[in-house]
Amino acid sequence: MINLTSLEIDNIHAYWQAANYLAVGQIYLQDNPLLNEPLRPEHIKPRLLGHWGTSPGLSFIYVHLNRLIKNTGADILYVCGPGHGAPGVVAHTYLEGTYSEIYPNVTQDERGMRHLFRQFSTPGGIPSHLSADIPGSIHEGGELGYSLVHAFGAAFDNPGLLVACIVGDGEAETGPLEASWKSIAFLNPVRDGAVLPILHLNGYKISGPTVLSRMSDIKLEQLFNGHGYDVLFVEGNNPAVVHRQMAGILDEAYRRIKLIQDHARQGNPLPCNRWPIIILRTPKGWTGPKEWNGIPIEDTFRSHQVPLTGVKEDPKKLKALEDWMLSYRPERLFDKKGKLLPELAALAPEGNKRMSALPYANGGLLLKELHLPEFRKYAVSLTAPGVTEAESTRNLGKYLRDVFSLNQETNNFRLFCPDETTSNRLEAVFEVTNRCSMQTINPADDKLANDGRVMEVLSEHLCEGWLEGYLLTGRHGLFPCYEAFVTIVDSMVSQHAKWLKTAHGLPWRKPVASLNYLLTSHVWRQDNNGYSHQGPGFIDTVVNKKSAVVRIYLPPDANTLLSVMDHCLRSKDYVNVVIAGKQPELQWLTMPEAIDHCALGASEWKWAGNMANEQPDVILGCAGDVPTLEAVAAAWILKQYMPELKVRLVNVMDLMSLSPVAYHPHGMSDELFNTLFTNTAPVIFAFHGYVRIIHDLIHGRPDPARFHVRGYMEEGTTTTPFDMVVLNKMSRYHLAMEAVKRVPHMHQQADAFISYCEGKLKEHAAYICANLDDLPEIKNWKWTN
Amino acid sequence: MINLTSLEIDNIHAYWQAANYLAVGQIYLQDNPLLNEPLRPEHIKPRLLGHWGTSPGLSFIYVHLNRLIKNTGADILYVCGPGHGAPGVVAHTYLEGTYSEIYPNVTQDERGMRHLFRQFSTPGGIPSHLSADIPGSIHEGGELGYSLVHAFGAAFDNPGLLVACIVGDGEAETGPLEASWKSIAFLNPVRDGAVLPILHLNGYKISGPTVLSRMSDIKLEQLFNGHGYDVLFVEGNNPAVVHRQMAGILDEAYRRIKLIQDHARQGNPLPCNRWPIIILRTPKGWTGPKEWNGIPIEDTFRSHQVPLTGVKEDPKKLKALEDWMLSYRPERLFDKKGKLLPELAALAPEGNKRMSALPYANGGLLLKELHLPEFRKYAVSLTAPGVTEAESTRNLGKYLRDVFSLNQETNNFRLFCPDETTSNRLEAVFEVTNRCSMQTINPADDKLANDGRVMEVLSEHLCEGWLEGYLLTGRHGLFPCYEAFVTIVDSMVSQHAKWLKTAHGLPWRKPVASLNYLLTSHVWRQDNNGYSHQGPGFIDTVVNKKSAVVRIYLPPDANTLLSVMDHCLRSKDYVNVVIAGKQPELQWLTMPEAIDHCALGASEWKWAGNMANEQPDVILGCAGDVPTLEAVAAAWILKQYMPELKVRLVNVMDLMSLSPVAYHPHGMSDELFNTLFTNTAPVIFAFHGYVRIIHDLIHGRPDPARFHVRGYMEEGTTTTPFDMVVLNKMSRYHLAMEAVKRVPHMHQQADAFISYCEGKLKEHAAYICANLDDLPEIKNWKWTN
Repeated sequence: MINLTSLEIDNIHAYWQAANYLAVGQIYLQDNPLLNEPLRPEHIKPRLLGHWGTSPGLSFIYVHLNRLIKNTGADILYVCGPGHGAPGVVAHTYLEGTYSEIYPNVTQDERGMRHLFRQFSTPGGIPSHLSADIPGSIHEGGELGYSLVHAFGAAFDNPGLLVACIVGDGEAETGPLEASWKSIAFLNPVRDGAVLPILHLNGYKISGPTVLSRMSDIKLEQLFNGHGYDVLFVEGNNPAVVHRQMAGILDEAYRRIKLIQDHARQGNPLPCNRWPIIILRTPKGWTGPKEWNGIPIEDTFRSHQVPLTGVKEDPKKLKALEDWMLSYRPERLFDKKGKLLPELAALAPEGNKRMSALPYANGGLLLKELHLPEFRKYAVSLTAPGVTEAESTRNLGKYLRDVFSLNQETNNFRLFCPDETTSNRLEAVFEVTNRCSMQTINPADDKLANDGRVMEVLSEHLCEGWLEGYLLTGRHGLFPCYEAFVTIVDSMVSQHAKWLKTAHGLPWRKPVASLNYLLTSHVWRQDNNGYSHQGPGFIDTVVNKKSAVVRIYLPPDANTLLSVMDHCLRSKDYVNVVIAGKQPELQWLTMPEAIDHCALGASEWKWAGNMANEQPDVILGCAGDVPTLEAVAAAWILKQYMPELKVRLVNVMDLMSLSPVAYHPHGMSDELFNTLFTNTAPVIFAFHGYVRIIHDLIHGRPDPARFHVRGYMEEGTTTTPFDMVVLNKMSRYHLAMEAVKRVPHMHQQADAFISYCEGKLKEHAAYICANLDDLPEIKNWKWTN
Repeated sequence: MINLTSLEIDNIHAYWQAANYLAVGQIYLQDNPLLNEPLRPEHIKPRLLGHWGTSPGLSFIYVHLNRLIKNTGADILYVCGPGHGAPGVVAHTYLEGTYSEIYPNVTQDERGMRHLFRQFSTPGGIPSHLSADIPGSIHEGGELGYSLVHAFGAAFDNPGLLVACIVGDGEAETGPLEASWKSIAFLNPVRDGAVLPILHLNGYKISGPTVLSRMSDIKLEQLFNGHGYDVLFVEGNNPAVVHRQMAGILDEAYRRIKLIQDHARQGNPLPCNRWPIIILRTPKGWTGPKEWNGIPIEDTFRSHQVPLTGVKEDPKKLKALEDWMLSYRPERLFDKKGKLLPELAALAPEGNKRMSALPYANGGLLLKELHLPEFRKYAVSLTAPGVTEAESTRNLGKYLRDVFSLNQETNNFRLFCPDETTSNRLEAVFEVTNRCSMQTINPADDKLANDGRVMEVLSEHLCEGWLEGYLLTGRHGLFPCYEAFVTIVDSMVSQHAKWLKTAHGLPWRKPVASLNYLLTSHVWRQDNNGYSHQGPGFIDTVVNKKSAVVRIYLPPDANTLLSVMDHCLRSKDYVNVVIAGKQPELQWLTMPEAIDHCALGASEWKWAGNMANEQPDVILGCAGDVPTLEAVAAAWILKQYMPELKVRLVNVMDLMSLSPVAYHPHGMSDELFNTLFTNTAPVIFAFHGYVRIIHDLIHGRPDPARFHVRGYMEEGTTTTPFDMVVLNKMSRYHLAMEAVKRVPHMHQQADAFISYCEGKLKEHAAYICANLDDLPEIKNWKWTN
């Protein structure tokens, strides 16, 4: 047990009490913050909102981490998992002065304290869970389950950082949190920082007990030993005892972490890295009201939210609240003006050592630009459009390989991918780095090493969460993923987009690198997998987010992919979704053309059209690599068989360029839109995803009803590439027939042409049935003039 | 160790070899299935697709479970977690005859075997992961992570069922799978069946090792002891030894399960239910090619997919394939005609005991209709629209309570909810049932019991997965969820919708109860929580699914909620999303009106309009409870201040009714659409979710550009109800101003009215700032004529 004097314990306790006092004040008071006068109904907020239950535990841990920082000088990032922990955490950021530095109106005096209380969970104020507003946080407390995965993401490549991650026993029931424990199998004590999980068992969720809190210590120890951790328990409800225990255990945990790191960094790693975990069992709503009318509150689910309600109306309850707040003895914590007493304030670390002011928690401060290779030098060379084949992602892999090489010294770039780097054909990266693992490595393993920078784990949640934590602490990364399975993290990307939107409104938060997705193995090419692997719905999730944050790119070939990926890796504060196939595909644009096309977002491909400078009879639009192939092939068929039809082909690379300017910064002007799509010509549009996105984006453009969109309609399973587009009625023949049908003056010749197309579709059906493959004329089709 | 004769072992082995032979055949051959002649290139499929690696392990388990069934008569459901396990599982369904019974063209002879091989992973055939096509399956093998949660869902309330759940070590890395282990804390041996997890460690994913396979047996034992399981290991690569081990261990696991169940069912439960788990370590691609050109294949990631490629082109490889297939000695497995030898066929169970014919795996066969109370008797009574307040979900809770009561005997209805039943105000159900837990129950716990039928766990993945497993085995349920957090299961509902679509095409699959969501605590009322809890994106995920499967309902009040929920609980094979608030809200429709409104999907609310039988100048449309309040209040304001403006109010309860008939079976006819919305009048539409859904649904209707949609635009955080609609520009004043602006002949009076509305918005802003609450005139507004 640690040697702490009674005075030290008393001071730690008093600091904690101050934080608890401020937490209660935030939930209840709009006035009389120091209780300088007896509490009256008008001092109480009109609507009591917020969450008490988890706050005292969070404050308790915070004050003890402060002590550790003071003693060791460690850089500690405080990641708060439990939901609705804001009152306790905000209290600390205020007590240590950071809050007032960032929000000068919330001064460290009575007036500022009143403001602090009033803003909490009120209109125009701050929410009761953590958020970007709170200094020191990289973590929302809204949707539960991501604290630990963010903690590990923050620790990767930050060898000087210790991430203290408080895991709530509610969130510990979620899948992503359960998956996160295994992150230590990927944490390298030489190059990475440490994560100290502090599992806080306060027993209850909103209304029921938690599974982990009802497990015996023996079971918990088995479980976490199995996961690879050494368990340190801190348990009790008597603060005097628990303070002493917690201080000792934190010192011990820190000692063990240093031991692991020191040995590893001296080239003499311990045979078995068992990282410590602290399991803290304290009552929910600790130090709050014990009961009301004989019904227990403290240590039950009843202290989850506002433990005493109706205080404004009920004088007895008002008195109980006053007694509760006075039990913290505010007069011994704050001076007359409302400032924390100097002997207590001295307990907090100073300057950037304060957890609320830690630069890691405002990653933009630490962000170093990536050194990017000249992407033009990876260009696929073409002599003509639609003749050369290339695998877009395989080509991109060479560029990414060199991104790794160029940033070897700063160690600030990683790939996060669910075991699909090779499957997604990015394997050139393995020429310069490896997959990462801290487990046993066998001779038969391929490209596996302790210091690999490719993070492969079969959990999209972990890939996403690690990357988010990595980005929010000032680094760069890319998440290549099967398109269908990235929807597993729909809700995570939504929360990240919310974080970015909120951070944009906070000048003190510095921009961080964008969250970049490369979605490949996409919906149209699941020859090997089938229906379960087909799903372009991630576009729908992302497109709804705040337009200042989201970008969606559909590069149709290798050169456009290079150009757009280079752009994404340079960008800040966005969610960039790039969708590109991995299969050999025809190439359309030279690198200069690709750069121009990407800059415009959408442009006419004159060579594919069939008109001089006249107005088109019909426009073929396309977005996505497979739709582009079909649209270009449709244009070619029309040229052969309906030469008098004036066809224009427009390719859309930047999906949001279709949007009216008012709705998205990338939206094209009405002039440009009309130049491309005219005001009146029918548009047959082949789209990578669900058609409704296009229907929406063109809403408000001239005569939207002339847009006839083909896209994925949940048809097809294991089949050939061409059969997929046939089944979803997006094939070249479907597009060509639709084009002809929509041009009234073509009706005379239309019937013969439509018969021809339908015949071709029948031929396809018969051929595939007999040969299990596509017609050679389809498979081997190339553009010819 | 078990007493098995050598003959028994030989037979088991031979049966396994037959399954392995068929698995290889499915991947490679299009002809010469029995290798009656030397293998030639033309016997090989043009495209080699499919996955070998996991197949032998899956077959191995299958053949041993067959033995257990034969010996015990147990009903065993085989849930297959590993990805791409179809070749091994399909082989068994074929060997035991079920496949031919269902698909008569796939006969048990050479012709049928050729068909079996040819259809696999080929156009028009079946995918390489499990799917609804495969008899005996309730489980896709596409998106990984849900096998164990489905297994528990299937076991709930099926006391006679043993679910053998094969968990792959790849999928074991996912969050949902990790979360699923704790399901035993909710499995009651008295009323539920058993789940026997068989964790199959074959070492590799696509290209890297798995985390669990690299853990020592000691660590694995600790981990699963911690989770509450007793671990039984089976390990090796010598089939003769491993067969004997596996048979013995399976018998032992079965004995322990029966012991737990028998004791519990006799009222004498064992003090500690430690359910068995089997951990099976065998090589990936077991019995396949050992190596090629000195590079190992068996027991490495290289056997994941097609272990020998290019066999059609390379005679040496072709020979290697032939040797591999002949190593199974097909002449000793099949008779000349290609049928499994009778002495082997006798090893499989018969009739419905065959795992591929188990009725539980075709839940519709066992489905009993729910007894539903007369929903009309829970009606909220109103004297006039817009005067009475009620909490829609609290009222629904009474109905759900009685659903529990009425179906007590059949035990075929449960609620699955992430600890929010009370928060979502459905607590009336606790009058007749409890939350379920098998852990220690403390006196302070509220409504917690071993036999509770409300499944609360803080994991949306578990709620969704348990419910899916419960439905697919023929029962009924409801998933009430916070709207924002249901997007956590976006990808799961997508897979379920795919399953339903596929099952619709299979006449032998009988309809199952619909997957019903009640989304409450919705985007517009997060006073307590803020931005992180705001997200209506689930609508966008669901709306893209096949129209035959999905339904989205936005009941505006308590009576419409009752009517639509009654409909959903009666329906089959749908995904029904019902969105309704839990806060006190004004009520609009009497029960007869509500029923009519629900039947139509959308209708005009004449009392709210301001016109006799004339054509409207402008239409106020609305969908969702909060948008309805604002639209009706806008109509009221217009009536007061712009009495000459002819306003029609249309409420849309069934979102898909807006869709053109061609796109959704609920889509309204053009005639009805035009009756409601006219052809030309401007429509100001207030929508619960993101506006783009409406933009899409009306695409193709007359002049869609006249629809001006307001909805959630990612604005607002912790604030008052009215402030939320103001921040998102959907307030009554915004709607009313927009309406006036869109009617040209109103322009003269418009300016004064717009000034009035803008003044009101300013008044609101000032009031909320000073009082932290909404203006009383807004808060207390009611409809008056």
